[in-house]
Amino acid sequence: MSNPKSQKLKARLPRGFVDRSAEEIRASEHMLAKIKGVYELYGFEPIETPAFEYTDCLGKFLPDTDRPNAGVFSVQDDDEQWMSLRYDLTAPLARHVAEHINEIQLPFRSYRAGWVFRNEKPGPGRFRQFMQFDADSVGAPGVGADAEMCMMFADTLDALGLKGKYVVRVNNRKILDGVLESIGLEGEKNAERRLTVLRAIDKLDKFGVEGVKLLLGDGRKDESGDFTKGAGLGEAAIGELLRIFGSTDIDEKIDRLVAREVELKIANPEFTHQIESALHQAAPQMGEQEKGSANFNQIPLDLSSFSTVERNAILQNVGLFALASSRFNVNMTFSEGFRELLQLAVLIEASGYKKSQIKIDLSVVRGLEYYTGMVYEAELTFPVTNEKGEVVRFGSVGGGGRYDGLVKRFTGRDVPATGFSIGVSRLMSALKNLGKLDVAEVLEPVLVTVMDGDVAALARYQAMTQQLRAAGIRAEMYQGNWKKFGNQLKYADKRGCPLAIIQGSEERANGEIQIKDLIEGKRLSGEITDNVTWRESRPAQETVRETDLVETVRKMLAAQAEDRSRVARTDA
Amino acid sequence: MSNPKSQKLKARLPRGFVDRSAEEIRASEHMLAKIKGVYELYGFEPIETPAFEYTDCLGKFLPDTDRPNAGVFSVQDDDEQWMSLRYDLTAPLARHVAEHINEIQLPFRSYRAGWVFRNEKPGPGRFRQFMQFDADSVGAPGVGADAEMCMMFADTLDALGLKGKYVVRVNNRKILDGVLESIGLEGEKNAERRLTVLRAIDKLDKFGVEGVKLLLGDGRKDESGDFTKGAGLGEAAIGELLRIFGSTDIDEKIDRLVAREVELKIANPEFTHQIESALHQAAPQMGEQEKGSANFNQIPLDLSSFSTVERNAILQNVGLFALASSRFNVNMTFSEGFRELLQLAVLIEASGYKKSQIKIDLSVVRGLEYYTGMVYEAELTFPVTNEKGEVVRFGSVGGGGRYDGLVKRFTGRDVPATGFSIGVSRLMSALKNLGKLDVAEVLEPVLVTVMDGDVAALARYQAMTQQLRAAGIRAEMYQGNWKKFGNQLKYADKRGCPLAIIQGSEERANGEIQIKDLIEGKRLSGEITDNVTWRESRPAQETVRETDLVETVRKMLAAQAEDRSRVARTDA
Repeated sequence: MSNPKSQKLKARLPRGFVDRSAEEIRASEHMLAKIKGVYELYGFEPIETPAFEYTDCLGKFLPDTDRPNAGVFSVQDDDEQWMSLRYDLTAPLARHVAEHINEIQLPFRSYRAGWVFRNEKPGPGRFRQFMQFDADSVGAPGVGADAEMCMMFADTLDALGLKGKYVVRVNNRKILDGVLESIGLEGEKNAERRLTVLRAIDKLDKFGVEGVKLLLGDGRKDESGDFTKGAGLGEAAIGELLRIFGSTDIDEKIDRLVAREVELKIANPEFTHQIESALHQAAPQMGEQEKGSANFNQIPLDLSSFSTVERNAILQNVGLFALASSRFNVNMTFSEGFRELLQLAVLIEASGYKKSQIKIDLSVVRGLEYYTGMVYEAELTFPVTNEKGEVVRFGSVGGGGRYDGLVKRFTGRDVPATGFSIGVSRLMSALKNLGKLDVAEVLEPVLVTVMDGDVAALARYQAMTQQLRAAGIRAEMYQGNWKKFGNQLKYADKRGCPLAIIQGSEERANGEIQIKDLIEGKRLSGEITDNVTWRESRPAQETVRETDLVETVRKMLAAQAEDRSRVARTDA
Repeated sequence: MSNPKSQKLKARLPRGFVDRSAEEIRASEHMLAKIKGVYELYGFEPIETPAFEYTDCLGKFLPDTDRPNAGVFSVQDDDEQWMSLRYDLTAPLARHVAEHINEIQLPFRSYRAGWVFRNEKPGPGRFRQFMQFDADSVGAPGVGADAEMCMMFADTLDALGLKGKYVVRVNNRKILDGVLESIGLEGEKNAERRLTVLRAIDKLDKFGVEGVKLLLGDGRKDESGDFTKGAGLGEAAIGELLRIFGSTDIDEKIDRLVAREVELKIANPEFTHQIESALHQAAPQMGEQEKGSANFNQIPLDLSSFSTVERNAILQNVGLFALASSRFNVNMTFSEGFRELLQLAVLIEASGYKKSQIKIDLSVVRGLEYYTGMVYEAELTFPVTNEKGEVVRFGSVGGGGRYDGLVKRFTGRDVPATGFSIGVSRLMSALKNLGKLDVAEVLEPVLVTVMDGDVAALARYQAMTQQLRAAGIRAEMYQGNWKKFGNQLKYADKRGCPLAIIQGSEERANGEIQIKDLIEGKRLSGEITDNVTWRESRPAQETVRETDLVETVRKMLAAQAEDRSRVARTDA
């Protein structure tokens, strides 16, 4: 154990890992409890998996492949099998469900908070260990399950005090895949290339149009000289993709359509059935003319039986479709994706959610390979100033989607699933930014000071401390070097202790104690400026019988609490 | 994503890792909250460190060295530095304190629950990832800090409902070191060998006297053929050590002394001061005759001024000393350790703890290298049947000790510290064994069933579900394949849903819903045996207006709750 100074170790953490303070832990617990409350209300149950999985069970679904080990921490076990620390909570859930598929009652609705690990380059706000809080419905094939996820996401953000400050944006991979098929990237043989294209498009925010152009073409070299191989598309295809995804144009046009719509209330849900039928009729038509150009005018949709409000709703959705379809070749994949989005929009509106909360948005991609249908993302919309001093939207705090193939990897049979993940740290920093980070009031301990170090005196201090604790009062006896009394008061001050108990040898002989009101003492020594306050102030110190310890401490703590609530009332 | 059946992956976890069920998670949260409550009452604050540390920061303090990487999971970082997953929560805390030594106000009293990782052979109840819940006082040099830890450990077990079912056993490494010095293993050059001896002694329970004899000598080969190198002691030294530690003899004699003592109440704490002085006088004498044989009769201790109760207390403690010292050569290290133990005993007794709760016990060792003074261990004393069918004490659920050198490794200066660790999983299985595992009553969700799959119907089911949730009622809409209604009822049954909401097309047209009381339905179908119960039973199904959904559900849930509490009253 001896360690000469020359060999002194440097105390430091590996890059991308951080400690958490008491304040952060308490705030995070508070936040997790609120999220959990919403998930439970929705009928979800907790389930947890360990940090390690076999590497093959996790699969390689991480978007960032700029490192040799593809972003995960891996070790080889004794039996030479590779194990990895989980990089998300979805792949382990799929393993869990597959492993217990015969015992689990489907649909399996579960939630879990846990640390995940990514062996990536750390940066500001980008850690190699961070917490996610996920919810998933496994064995849930319908759009209803996706719609529920979006609503639960919205309710969660509401519960955290973010009402009006977020939007859950929804897209469907089939829409994206349909577009990619239309430029010749169809079929199994192009699966990986499609993914490269999606990930490139997903980087629009980060790298801009020029950067994405490179990623869609031959590749892109970053500032550090690292080269990312591109999708190898031709100029025409790149131009087509950027025309669709490379501007805010579509968004703008959708927004204009939405603005036309008055507050949509579905008086008679039967009407959605009619939209559905109408689109069912429309879809095969479009299927027949796959890769031909479809136009809104070609869809045989009879809107005469609808009210104005209803007609607006249909126009908004079908308008979006028409708009999108007029810009590129339409195919079955695309129209299936679109039909699902429309159904989701109807379910969400029927449940009373506004477009400002949950919104169809074709620009949502999500970088993870395993998504097969709906993808959704929650963005906080309030402005913050970034590291470059620019005012930007706070941005994404989580997202998810449908991953129908993930359990199938193990079971060989379809187990459709959908779910989302909240980035706990990111959400916490958002709440902190808004001053909405709830921290329950913590009462610091009463400090029993030490005036004498012999066993008899220590025993008596210890007994007093235990008496206070037995009475439910947070208390501690000073455990540092007691000989410098100043250190004890400094400690009490730094901790924010409300009271200090003092017993010197004389008081001990008399069976007495002093109780010092440290809050009042602070006020008296600095903050009192007028006579009224002087008269109202409590005595900063009392000498009482040792047997009255608990009773007096209780009384003085109650007086301080009364003081605090008076200040709160005055402030309010 | 496609995965032909032939390449199907096997869903499984690496050995020594497990998933946690909803029940386990809820029980564990409940338990952790209770432990936290006690730690907070004692004035401790939460602090957390990440899963990874630099390998050199963790140090090699693990007792089991039967694997090449000494029991830890390690990976090499990009910059070629080695990082390891933490194997306990103490070494990372030492790093944290050292890293922030200039900002942290000492004594630093903190707690933390977290997963730790050991790359060891897994076995029954022995995992490679498990949770510890630690509390530590750093910058706390006195025995008072150790005494407080023992009391807090006892209070924690009390709070968990284990009153009378545990004992916190305390020893001091200096006692052990003193003994080892007395057989010639003194000084820095023997540090590692002393540790090997301590670990051998710590294995008495596991390997028995014969096994430990091998570990103290040349070494021991286990059943699998793995060889553990021994301490290489000679026969005389081994005999001496086993005479002291290899039997329950000392324990028995101490117990006899304790039995002689009437309920000890320290009327005048001043008397402990006198014990202390007496021992102070005694200690130097023993120092002078280091390695000579000391005897109780040689200690100039005047007991005439003490009361009978007090004299008994002294005799018990000094008796222990005399007993121990008469059996081997006494030295300064030993007597310092003994004096600390005595002081701890006095502080604990003064605070009203019984010997049955916290007890000095020379057989406690603790395998970790970094302990420098007090070591303590909580053992559950109730009988359980082990895998071999033998009835044994449940055993240890955690422990700790003083580690004055751990922060010094980094800072070069003394930062004395003491703390303990609770094995959360082990404690949970103990509570489960006793039927004391509190699980808060969980009300399963009301199930809104799906009778029709068109968008309009789905929208209406979804809206009902959201209405229930908005009213704070746990609810979910069936998300599986709705076409087999039997599956929906089976799901509701397996989940334990209290009510099912049903709306077919006819009811939808009439604006009505059926609410099925699944609990009552169960009772009606199986458990009702007499007419009185029949008359008292609620209707198992109600048809109401859709607008009365929330109100009716509330009423029916309240009736079920009333039913449950009536049953609870009857059972009580």
